Amino acid sequence: MPGLDVIRLGLAPLGIDEVIEVAYHGRKVEIDKESLARLDHARQLVFELAEQGHPVYGLNRGVGWNKDRRIEPGQYERFNRNLLYSHSAGVGPLASREEVRAVMLTRLNGLLQGHAGLQPEIVVRYADFLNHGIHPLLPLRGSIGAADITSISHIGLAMIGEGEVEYGGIRMAASEALELAGLSPIILGPKDGLAIVSSNALSAGTGALALGEAEKLLKLADLVYALSLEAVTGNVSPLHEALHKVRPYPGQLRSRDRIARYLKGSELWDGTLPDSLQDPLSFRDACQIHGAAEDALRYAREQLELHLTSSDDNPCLLVEERLILSNANFDPVVWILGFEMLGIALHHLSKSSCHRIIKLGDPRFTGLTRFLTPDEQKVIGFCTLQKTATSLDAEIRHLINPVSTDFYSLAGDLEDHATNAPLVVRNLREIIERIYYILAIELLHAAQAVQLRPPGFRMGEGTRQLYEALREEVPFLSEDRILTGDIDRTYRLLSSIRIKGHSISIIESKSG
Amino acid sequence: MPGLDVIRLGLAPLGIDEVIEVAYHGRKVEIDKESLARLDHARQLVFELAEQGHPVYGLNRGVGWNKDRRIEPGQYERFNRNLLYSHSAGVGPLASREEVRAVMLTRLNGLLQGHAGLQPEIVVRYADFLNHGIHPLLPLRGSIGAADITSISHIGLAMIGEGEVEYGGIRMAASEALELAGLSPIILGPKDGLAIVSSNALSAGTGALALGEAEKLLKLADLVYALSLEAVTGNVSPLHEALHKVRPYPGQLRSRDRIARYLKGSELWDGTLPDSLQDPLSFRDACQIHGAAEDALRYAREQLELHLTSSDDNPCLLVEERLILSNANFDPVVWILGFEMLGIALHHLSKSSCHRIIKLGDPRFTGLTRFLTPDEQKVIGFCTLQKTATSLDAEIRHLINPVSTDFYSLAGDLEDHATNAPLVVRNLREIIERIYYILAIELLHAAQAVQLRPPGFRMGEGTRQLYEALREEVPFLSEDRILTGDIDRTYRLLSSIRIKGHSISIIESKSG
Amino acid sequence: MPGLDVIRLGLAPLGIDEVIEVAYHGRKVEIDKESLARLDHARQLVFELAEQGHPVYGLNRGVGWNKDRRIEPGQYERFNRNLLYSHSAGVGPLASREEVRAVMLTRLNGLLQGHAGLQPEIVVRYADFLNHGIHPLLPLRGSIGAADITSISHIGLAMIGEGEVEYGGIRMAASEALELAGLSPIILGPKDGLAIVSSNALSAGTGALALGEAEKLLKLADLVYALSLEAVTGNVSPLHEALHKVRPYPGQLRSRDRIARYLKGSELWDGTLPDSLQDPLSFRDACQIHGAAEDALRYAREQLELHLTSSDDNPCLLVEERLILSNANFDPVVWILGFEMLGIALHHLSKSSCHRIIKLGDPRFTGLTRFLTPDEQKVIGFCTLQKTATSLDAEIRHLINPVSTDFYSLAGDLEDHATNAPLVVRNLREIIERIYYILAIELLHAAQAVQLRPPGFRMGEGTRQLYEALREEVPFLSEDRILTGDIDRTYRLLSSIRIKGHSISIIESKSG
Amino acid sequence: MPGLDVIRLGLAPLGIDEVIEVAYHGRKVEIDKESLARLDHARQLVFELAEQGHPVYGLNRGVGWNKDRRIEPGQYERFNRNLLYSHSAGVGPLASREEVRAVMLTRLNGLLQGHAGLQPEIVVRYADFLNHGIHPLLPLRGSIGAADITSISHIGLAMIGEGEVEYGGIRMAASEALELAGLSPIILGPKDGLAIVSSNALSAGTGALALGEAEKLLKLADLVYALSLEAVTGNVSPLHEALHKVRPYPGQLRSRDRIARYLKGSELWDGTLPDSLQDPLSFRDACQIHGAAEDALRYAREQLELHLTSSDDNPCLLVEERLILSNANFDPVVWILGFEMLGIALHHLSKSSCHRIIKLGDPRFTGLTRFLTPDEQKVIGFCTLQKTATSLDAEIRHLINPVSTDFYSLAGDLEDHATNAPLVVRNLREIIERIYYILAIELLHAAQAVQLRPPGFRMGEGTRQLYEALREEVPFLSEDRILTGDIDRTYRLLSSIRIKGHSISIIESKSG
Repeated sequence: MPGLDVIRLGLAPLGIDEVIEVAYHGRKVEIDKESLARLDHARQLVFELAEQGHPVYGLNRGVGWNKDRRIEPGQYERFNRNLLYSHSAGVGPLASREEVRAVMLTRLNGLLQGHAGLQPEIVVRYADFLNHGIHPLLPLRGSIGAADITSISHIGLAMIGEGEVEYGGIRMAASEALELAGLSPIILGPKDGLAIVSSNALSAGTGALALGEAEKLLKLADLVYALSLEAVTGNVSPLHEALHKVRPYPGQLRSRDRIARYLKGSELWDGTLPDSLQDPLSFRDACQIHGAAEDALRYAREQLELHLTSSDDNPCLLVEERLILSNANFDPVVWILGFEMLGIALHHLSKSSCHRIIKLGDPRFTGLTRFLTPDEQKVIGFCTLQKTATSLDAEIRHLINPVSTDFYSLAGDLEDHATNAPLVVRNLREIIERIYYILAIELLHAAQAVQLRPPGFRMGEGTRQLYEALREEVPFLSEDRILTGDIDRTYRLLSSIRIKGHSISIIESKSG
Repeated sequence: MPGLDVIRLGLAPLGIDEVIEVAYHGRKVEIDKESLARLDHARQLVFELAEQGHPVYGLNRGVGWNKDRRIEPGQYERFNRNLLYSHSAGVGPLASREEVRAVMLTRLNGLLQGHAGLQPEIVVRYADFLNHGIHPLLPLRGSIGAADITSISHIGLAMIGEGEVEYGGIRMAASEALELAGLSPIILGPKDGLAIVSSNALSAGTGALALGEAEKLLKLADLVYALSLEAVTGNVSPLHEALHKVRPYPGQLRSRDRIARYLKGSELWDGTLPDSLQDPLSFRDACQIHGAAEDALRYAREQLELHLTSSDDNPCLLVEERLILSNANFDPVVWILGFEMLGIALHHLSKSSCHRIIKLGDPRFTGLTRFLTPDEQKVIGFCTLQKTATSLDAEIRHLINPVSTDFYSLAGDLEDHATNAPLVVRNLREIIERIYYILAIELLHAAQAVQLRPPGFRMGEGTRQLYEALREEVPFLSEDRILTGDIDRTYRLLSSIRIKGHSISIIESKSG
Repeated sequence: MPGLDVIRLGLAPLGIDEVIEVAYHGRKVEIDKESLARLDHARQLVFELAEQGHPVYGLNRGVGWNKDRRIEPGQYERFNRNLLYSHSAGVGPLASREEVRAVMLTRLNGLLQGHAGLQPEIVVRYADFLNHGIHPLLPLRGSIGAADITSISHIGLAMIGEGEVEYGGIRMAASEALELAGLSPIILGPKDGLAIVSSNALSAGTGALALGEAEKLLKLADLVYALSLEAVTGNVSPLHEALHKVRPYPGQLRSRDRIARYLKGSELWDGTLPDSLQDPLSFRDACQIHGAAEDALRYAREQLELHLTSSDDNPCLLVEERLILSNANFDPVVWILGFEMLGIALHHLSKSSCHRIIKLGDPRFTGLTRFLTPDEQKVIGFCTLQKTATSLDAEIRHLINPVSTDFYSLAGDLEDHATNAPLVVRNLREIIERIYYILAIELLHAAQAVQLRPPGFRMGEGTRQLYEALREEVPFLSEDRILTGDIDRTYRLLSSIRIKGHSISIIESKSG
Repeated sequence: MPGLDVIRLGLAPLGIDEVIEVAYHGRKVEIDKESLARLDHARQLVFELAEQGHPVYGLNRGVGWNKDRRIEPGQYERFNRNLLYSHSAGVGPLASREEVRAVMLTRLNGLLQGHAGLQPEIVVRYADFLNHGIHPLLPLRGSIGAADITSISHIGLAMIGEGEVEYGGIRMAASEALELAGLSPIILGPKDGLAIVSSNALSAGTGALALGEAEKLLKLADLVYALSLEAVTGNVSPLHEALHKVRPYPGQLRSRDRIARYLKGSELWDGTLPDSLQDPLSFRDACQIHGAAEDALRYAREQLELHLTSSDDNPCLLVEERLILSNANFDPVVWILGFEMLGIALHHLSKSSCHRIIKLGDPRFTGLTRFLTPDEQKVIGFCTLQKTATSLDAEIRHLINPVSTDFYSLAGDLEDHATNAPLVVRNLREIIERIYYILAIELLHAAQAVQLRPPGFRMGEGTRQLYEALREEVPFLSEDRILTGDIDRTYRLLSSIRIKGHSISIIESKSG
C-alpha cells in the first residue's frame, strides 16, 4: 500500500484500524516529539525515586515472589538482562510477521502513555524495529494472560542483540540484524526489563487483529446471506426498516442497512416472486443474529481500544504525583470478557449459516433440485458439503467454551489471578477462520442455486458482484468433481474480499 | 413498602429497578390512557387487515409449521384457545411469586409498545393480575428461548379462567380467583393467543431480577473485599485514584470509588501499618476484576432494558405503515450474550474471593494464626470453610459454560434458531446465589481476622457497619462449633443488606 | 418390600443393587460377627501404635495443614469432637432420606474393610441408624470431592447427640432421637473423628443411586424406542442379530436383545409393512447408541463397586503389616471419570430420543398427520412438545461439561488434588431426571402415532404393556388440551416402571 | 526398523501396537490368502444380490438422502466415481505421513472382515500403498464422525489415479505415483465407492496413534514423578504395596509397580532422610491419579481395538445369511466415549504435574532455594516456568470439553446422529502434546533440585537414567539463560524416550 502516510504515535488514541495497517500493510510509524520529551521527564523521575531509596518493585527490588530481594544500582544491567532471560520461557509455534508487528506497535503505544519510566531509547527501538522490518521470533504459547511475559521478553532480547529475528524475510541472529540495520544494542538500565515484559501486548496486539477480522467477517456474512436469500427467492418483508426501528439495537440496524444495500436492485423487492408467509429463521433472523454479533463486537472493540491507549505498567509511574505505585492495571480481564462474548455471538452466526446451507440443498425450501445437482439422474451434487460445514461448526462450538478463569495461584501464591488472554484471543481467531470456510460453503450453495433458477433473475448490486467474483474462481457445478479444492478457493476468495465504507466494492488483495 | 407511588406504564421506558419493585415490593401499576388508546387503534387495524384477506401469520393462518393452515373468522376463539392449550407444555419447578410478577410486568410493557394488535382488555388484565396479586402458576422449564411459549401460555390460561394461580397466598383454580377478584374471563379473539405467548417475558422478566441481584452483589463484593483488606492490613496504594485514571474503564473507577468510600476513616490509610510492597493479586486487583464485572453488567443491562421497552411480537403490527409483518424480533440473542459474558465476569470475582479466603487462613499473609483459630492448641478454627467456598466456586465454573447455541431445528425445520434464554438467565442466578455464599465465607474470615488483631484497630465507615451487622448474627469463633449454621446465617444477612446511593447504609429487609 | 432378608455386611462385596434396596426399600443390615472381631483387633493395634509414640496423622497429630500439631492422649475426646464441629461446614439443600441411607451404608461397608481403626461401636452405630431409621440431616453441598468431610461429619454429630436428624418422619434434635431409639451417644476416642469424615461416602452412596437409576433408564430407553419404531412402522432389519455379532460390543448386543424381546410378536417383523430402505439414524442406530451407554455404565459400575468394598481411609491401618500409613486412597478420581463419561453417553441417547420426537411429528417420516393431530383442521396437536424436550436436552448438554478437574490448592497448599465428586454425581442425576422427561415426551408421541395407525396394528409383547400403562394415565389426544399435566403424569409413570430380569414385566411402585 | 517381520493381516486381531509399527516404523503388511478368498466369495454374493434386484443402499440405490435414486448396472463405474468426487470435500491441514498410513491400515483391516463386498483388488491396493509408501493427501477436517467420508475418499481417488499423493518424499499426482510404482488404476465397480468411504478409518487410525502416545505418556509421567519425589526427598510410605492392595484398581497397582521399579536403589527407601508426615497430594496421590488414567486408557483401548477388527460397513454383507443389510455399525460413539473420558483423566495428571512444578520452586516444600536458583543474590532461576506450564494446562482444560454430541441433523434429516470423532481424537492428541511439555518443565525442575541437594544423593535405577539423559541435552542452570530453548529440548527428549517391558531402558529415537 504505497504512499500511505506514516502514523504519528503519542497524540491521538491508537485504534484497531491502525494496528491492522501497520501489521499487514507495513505502514510506518513516527513518535511524536512531545511524547518523547515526556518519556525523558519520566525517566528522570525514576532515577530520583530510586535514589531516595524507596523500595520499588522491579526497580530496586525483584519481581514476582522475589519482590523481597534488593537490587543494588551496580546490578541494574545484569538484573534486567537476567530478567529478560528468565522470562523468555515460551512454547511454539512462532508468531507470524503480522502478529509480531501488531504486538510491537501495541507495546510501543502503551509505553508512550508515559507510566513505565524506562529509558526512552527502548521506546524508539520499537519504532525502529517496525520501520526497519526487524521482527523478533516470539513463541505464541506460555503466557497465562496477566502480562505476556514469556513471549514478549523475546523482543527485549532482540533489542540487546540476543535471540533470533526475521529480517528481510530471513531468519537470523538478532545481533546480525541490528548490525545490518545499523542499530546498536540497547544497554539495559533500571526498570527496563520489567517495562519490556510487563504488558499484555501479545494478547492485545493479536486481539486487535482478531477484531479487525471479525469486523470484515460480519460484513461478509451479511453479503453471503443476501445472496442466499436470493437463492431461495426469500421473503424480504422481515427486512422492512420499520420492523427494526421498533427494536433499535445499533447492530441490528446496521446489519439491516447493509443487507438492504447489497440487495439494492434485486428482483426480490419487486414482489413478483412466489412468497412464503414466513421463511425459516435462518433466512428471517439474520439482522437480529448478525446484529447481536455487531453489538458484541462493538463492546469488545471499545474495551480493547481503551486498553490500547492506556498503560498496563506495574509499577506505574505517576509523574504528576511523583509516585511509582504497585497496581494491577496489567489485568486484561476487562476487555477479555468481550472477546469471550464475541466468540459465542459468532457461533450463533455460524449455526445460522449452516442451517441455510442445509436448506439450500433441500428442495422443500428451494424448489430446486436435491443438493442443487444440475442433473438428478447423473450428478450427486453438494450432498457432502453440509457435513464439512457442520463439522467445522462443531469445532466452533468447542472453541466458545470459556477459558479465562482457568488459572493457578503462582509465584508463592502472590499471583492468584490471570485470564489466559492469548488463548482467548487465539480461540476467537480460530472461530473466525472456520466461519470463513462455512461462509465459503454457503456461498458455493447460494451461487449454484441462483444459477439453477430460470435465467434472467436479477441480483442485487452487492450480491451480483459477489456472485461474479466467485465464478472467476469456481465454475458452476455441472458434473461431480472433487470439492476439496473448490472449498479452498472460495475460502481464499472470501479472505481477500474487502468491503469498504458506504458504497459496496469488492477489492481483491493477497496481502491479508 | 407502603406509600410507594403507582408506576405509570406506557410513557417512559421500563427499567430494571421498576421490575424489581413491582416483583418484590408489590408496587402497583397503571396504564397510561393514551397508550391504551393506541392499542385500540392498533386493534382496529388488525380487523381491517384481516378483512382484506391477506394471509397473516397467527391471525388467519396457523403458527409455526402450521403457517399454511387457514383460520376462518368463526374459528378465532377456538383456535386461540387451542393455541394456548397446545403451547402449555412446560416442566416444573414453578416460578416464584416474584418471578411471575416480573414476567407479567415485562409482557405488559412489551404489549404497550402497540405492535401486537391484541384486544386491549388482555393488556389491562396483566395490570389487574399485578394489582390484585393474581399469580398464575408458571412452569419454569420447557422454553428454548425463542419466545417462552411453553411457560407464559399459562398466564393466558388464567385469563380465560383455566389452569391454576396463586392468589392471596393460596393455590386455587384460575376461575375461582377471577371470581373472587371480580374479574371476568377473557374471550379470546383473533391474534390474541399468539400475542400472549409470542414473547420472551419469562427470560426477560427473570433476567431483570438477575441483573438487579448482580448489581447488589457487586456492591457487596466491594464491601466485603474492603473488610478483607483491613483484615490483612493490606496495602492501599493500589487504590490510589490516579492509578485508575490512567486506565479509565467506567466499572473500574466505580469500584474504586466505592471501596474508597467503604474504607473512609480506616486506619489502613494512615500509613502506620506494616506494609507489603505488593499484596497478592486477590488483594490488589479488586477494582480491575470487580470493575470488569461492572462493565459487563452495564452492557447486559443496556441490552436488556432496550428489550424491555421494545416489541418482540411476531407478526409485528406497524400502525403507521398499515402493515403486519412476519419478523424475528422475538430473538433475544442480542441481550442474552451479555448475560453469558456477565456469568464469566462473576466467576473471576468469585475466584478472587476464594483466593482471599485461602489467604485469610494463612499466617504467611495475615501474620495471624492458622485458619484464624483463637487458640492454636485447642481450636481448629476455619480449616474447612475454604473447601466449602471452593466447592461452590467449582459449581460456578460449571455454570459459566455457554448454553445459548445448543438448540435444534424444529417445527418442520422452520425454527432453526434459538437461545435457551431461560436457562442462560437461570444459570446466571445460580451463579449469583453461590457467590453470596462465598462472600459470606469471606466475611466470616475477614471479621474473625479483624478481631484477632490488637484491639483498637480502626475500621472504615462502611466496613465497620458490615462487621457490626455480622456480629449481631454470628459471634466471634472462640471455640470450635458447627459451622453449617454460621454459613447459612451469614448468607442470609448478606442477602438482606441494601447499599443505597452515595451514602453507605445497611438496611435489613426480609422482602428479598 | 416386606419379608426381605436382612443384608449381611462384611463378607461379600457390597453391590449397587443392595445400596438401592437399603436406601429405597428400607432393607435392614447386619454386621458379620467375624468382621466385627477384626475391627476390635484393629482398634487394639491403633492403641499400641499410639503408645509407641510414632506420629500418626489424625491420631496423635492434627489433620490437613495441622498435621504438625501434636494431640495428647488427654485431648482425644475434645480433639475429635472439635474435628467434627469444624468439619461440619456444608451448604444446603439437605440430602433426601434415601440419600442419607445410601451414604451411611456406604460408609459402614468401607469401615468394615478394617483399615480405619476406629472404635467398633461407631461402626455398629451406622447399622443402628439404618435399622432404626435415624437419618442425620446432611447438607449436600460443600465437599470438594476428596473425602466428603463437610457433609458426612453431620452423621458423626448425630452419633454424639448433636445436630439434627429425621426420625420416624419427624425432624428433631439428634439427642432426642437417640433417646427415643434407646441408643446412647458415642464418646469419641482417638482417630474416631477422622475415620468418620475421611471418606467419599456422600459421593459414592449417591453415586450408587445414580447408577441404579441409569440402569433402569437404559432399559426404558430401549422400550420407548421400540414403541417409536412401531409408531413409524420402521425397518427392523438393522436389528438382525448377525449385524451386531460382526461388532460384538457387549452393550450393543444387550440393547439389541432387549429391543428384540420388547418387540416380540410385533407386526413389524412380519415384513408386510411398507419398508424404507434406511430409516433415519435415530431409528436405526439405537442399539449402537444405547449400547455405548451400556458399556459406559458397566465401566462406571465396576469402578464404583470396587470402591464400595475398598477402604478409602487415610491414614490406613494395615493390620498384618502392623503399620498405619498416610496415603491417598480417598481420591475418588478413578471411579468419578466413569461418571463423567456416562453423562456424555446419556446425552447421545437423549439427542436420539429428541430426534425421534421431531420425526414423530413429521408426516414425511410417519405418513401420519402433522404433529400427530387427530384432526388437521381443528386440533393443533403436539406442536410444542418438541420444544419442551429439546429445551431439556439443552440443559443436558450443559450438564455434561466436565467438572472434576476444577479445584483449588488448599490447606496450606497440601491438598492440591480433588474431584468435585458430589457435583459430578449430582450432575449425572440431573441428566437422568431430564431424560426421563424426554422419554416421557417420546412416549406420548409414539403412543399417539400408534393409535393414529389403522386399527389392528399388532404391537410387541413389551411395547403393548408400555402403551397400555400409559393409557391408564394419559388418554389419546383427541382435542387440544393443556399438556403440562400430561408430561408430568407420563414422567411419573416412567419413574415408577420396573423392568426385571429376562421376562418383561411392568411393575408400578410409588416407592421410588 | 529393518528386519521387522511383515505383519500378516486377516487372521489375528489388529492391535494398536501394530498400527504404530506400520505407521511410524514402515513395517510392511501381507494379506492372508484365505482372507482374500473370503473377499472373493463375498464379492460374488454382491453380484448375485444385485442381480436379484433387491434395492441395496449404495449398490443399486444412491447413498444418504439419495437412497431413493436407482443406479443401473451400466452406471456403476460413473456412479462410484462420482461418489468419490462428491464426497471429497475436506478442509486442511493435511494428514501427516504417519497418520495416512494408520488410516490405510485401519481401513484395510476393516475390509478384511469381509462385510463390505467390494472388489478384492481394492483391498490389495491398500496393502500396496502401505508397502510402496504411496500416501494420498488427506485433508484432516470435514468429517462429522459418522464415517469419515470427506477425508478418506481421497484414498479412493488416488486408487483410480486422481488427486495427489506423497511418494518417496515427493508430492505428485496420484496417476504419476501409480505409474512409478507399477500399479494400474482401479476401475470402480458396484458398491466400491461406498466401501471405500463408509468407514471411520480416519478417526480410528489416528485414534490408535493417540492411544499409543497416551500409553507412553503414562509411563513417562510415572518416571518424571519418581524423580520429583527424589527432588523433594518425599515420603515413600504412600507407595507401600499393601496400601494399594486394599484398593486394587488395576491401573493404580500398575502405576505403583512402575514407580517402585524406577525408584529401585534410591536413597528415598533408606529411611534416613528427613520425612514429612504427609506430603502434598501432588506428591502422595500419583498412583491413584495416574492409575485412574491407566484404567481409562485400558477402557479406550479395549473399545477401539474391538473396533479395529470389526466391520463398520453399511450396508453390511452377511455372507452366511446371504443378506446385505442397512445398519449403523459405522457409529463410533462406543469407543469415542472412552477417548473423551481419557482426556479428562489426563487433565488430572497434568494438574498434578503442575502442582509439583509449583512446589519444586517453593522452599517450604523443598528446603532448597526459591525457584531452584543456584544463587539467590544473582540468579532468578525458574520463576517463570510455572507460568508456561500452567498456561498449557489451561489449554488442556479447554480441550477436555466434550464435543461428541455437537452435531446437526443432515441429509434430508436422515443422518441425525454423529460424533465428531476426528475432533475428539485430535483434541486428545493436543492434550497429550501439551502434557509432554508440562512433564518437560517438571523434569527441568526435578533435575535442578536433585542437583542442588548435597552431593552423593543416590537416585533410583530409573530416575538416574532419566536424569542423565536430560543432562546430555540441557545443563544445570548455573546462571540465568533463555529458557525457551531448554523447554523445547527437554520436550524433544521426552518425545524420543522409550520405556519397554519390565526392565527400564531409555532408548532415543528420532522416528517418532
